[in-house]
Amino acid sequence: MTPEDSGATTSPNDYADETTGVVYLVGSGPGDPELLTVKARRLLDEADVVLHDKLPGPEILDSIPESKREDVGKRAGGERTSQAEINDRLVELAQEGKTVVRLKGGDPFVFGRGGEEAEYLAEHDVRFEIVPGVTSAIAAPGVAGIPVTHRDHTSSVTFVTGHEDPEKDESAIDWQALADTGGTIVVLMGVGRLPDYTQALLDAGMTLETPVALVEKGTRPGQQVASGTLDTIVDVRDEEGIEPPAVTVIGGVADVRRQVKEWLLHD
Amino acid sequence: MTPEDSGATTSPNDYADETTGVVYLVGSGPGDPELLTVKARRLLDEADVVLHDKLPGPEILDSIPESKREDVGKRAGGERTSQAEINDRLVELAQEGKTVVRLKGGDPFVFGRGGEEAEYLAEHDVRFEIVPGVTSAIAAPGVAGIPVTHRDHTSSVTFVTGHEDPEKDESAIDWQALADTGGTIVVLMGVGRLPDYTQALLDAGMTLETPVALVEKGTRPGQQVASGTLDTIVDVRDEEGIEPPAVTVIGGVADVRRQVKEWLLHD
Repeated sequence: MTPEDSGATTSPNDYADETTGVVYLVGSGPGDPELLTVKARRLLDEADVVLHDKLPGPEILDSIPESKREDVGKRAGGERTSQAEINDRLVELAQEGKTVVRLKGGDPFVFGRGGEEAEYLAEHDVRFEIVPGVTSAIAAPGVAGIPVTHRDHTSSVTFVTGHEDPEKDESAIDWQALADTGGTIVVLMGVGRLPDYTQALLDAGMTLETPVALVEKGTRPGQQVASGTLDTIVDVRDEEGIEPPAVTVIGGVADVRRQVKEWLLHD
Repeated sequence: MTPEDSGATTSPNDYADETTGVVYLVGSGPGDPELLTVKARRLLDEADVVLHDKLPGPEILDSIPESKREDVGKRAGGERTSQAEINDRLVELAQEGKTVVRLKGGDPFVFGRGGEEAEYLAEHDVRFEIVPGVTSAIAAPGVAGIPVTHRDHTSSVTFVTGHEDPEKDESAIDWQALADTGGTIVVLMGVGRLPDYTQALLDAGMTLETPVALVEKGTRPGQQVASGTLDTIVDVRDEEGIEPPAVTVIGGVADVRRQVKEWLLHD
């Protein structure tokens, strides 16, 4: 019912409810278009506008009509659009009555700043929905035959990011505590700082022989897996030329791949 | 090329390669059929046989033709099919040349024994593929407006299970180390033992005011969310009648829901 249709007095709030659009914070999954959820696929097809950066990957972005894509990853000058500008743009489009998909690599709430976007939308009275996605933290090791949990190896798995907020003075990650959990450790965006945190984990008492795997471009064309230990993985990374984006898996589970990889359908 | 078509000598190995089927270890996601991946949906439609228990939930199971469903969650007498029997059945079906989907709740490699199934298939020369799914550990909090990571609150998130191997004498989970990480803690299948681990985390130095949320049946009909603190959540659970299956989220992020829930499209 629009204000025009209504015989009753309409408050500004009613008006806002009737005319503002909606924002879907949607996870794209790890990159394989078939690992989009059915819901993500539907919303991409139905949306008026899709705001994205490059993280979902070219295979998924190419499946979205260019007319509805809005790249907020880069501006003309090559600099990144700030989070504040993205937040404002989401609100602006919703206030125009648009159905907006904010497409984020992996899951929107795993190191994706989706929480900040949700808070901003709520502060500006914009209705939204979270559409979870397959996180590359689980999927990239998974397709390579590495289970992030396994009864024989671990009772927990922790996800951290190797690419921390540059405004923070020092690492907020307590590597000693992570080592003490005894569980699997998965580092997202951690190719560059691999020497730092492998050393931190050794200093925390983990053994040189602890298995480590790197999965580059997991689930995507060009997927590459490198295996080693806390002692060897930096050299392995350099020898095999592993580049971002990649996921690092640390713990006994990384060794399961060795046992199963010959029988993986695609490897 | 079957042995019959071939003019050349065929070794037993060639024969095996030509005639055995394939097993897909597929994650069903958290329960909403629209949160199946596009690939899972396709494989469910194409498979000869789908082995499942009740964890994927009725909405998804009802979407699979009954003629191809094989319930390995329960036997006639009401007792559970053992993991060893499930493993054997997967190999048997593959050796019959079938295309088999082993459908698992959430992601197959997150507390799902998928790793054990993968190892058994490899040991028995069965080709297989991992098809990751949306894990309820992230999705159930997510749809309720709780981001498992958030720059303002946490640099890490750890997943543990409240339902440990009953053959283990004592908890393998080091709650002190988990508390020390300072990150979000997500407990799967942890409704029953909530009093035990909330106390363990308080003993480990976490404050009484630490926000905690319980999400029952996340993404499914009947979804229910209960919010409290380490001090109050056991009472809240009892008052609101939260039952398994539910996900427990412990940490500052659990409080984001309070700020945003009014603007969630479905809540």
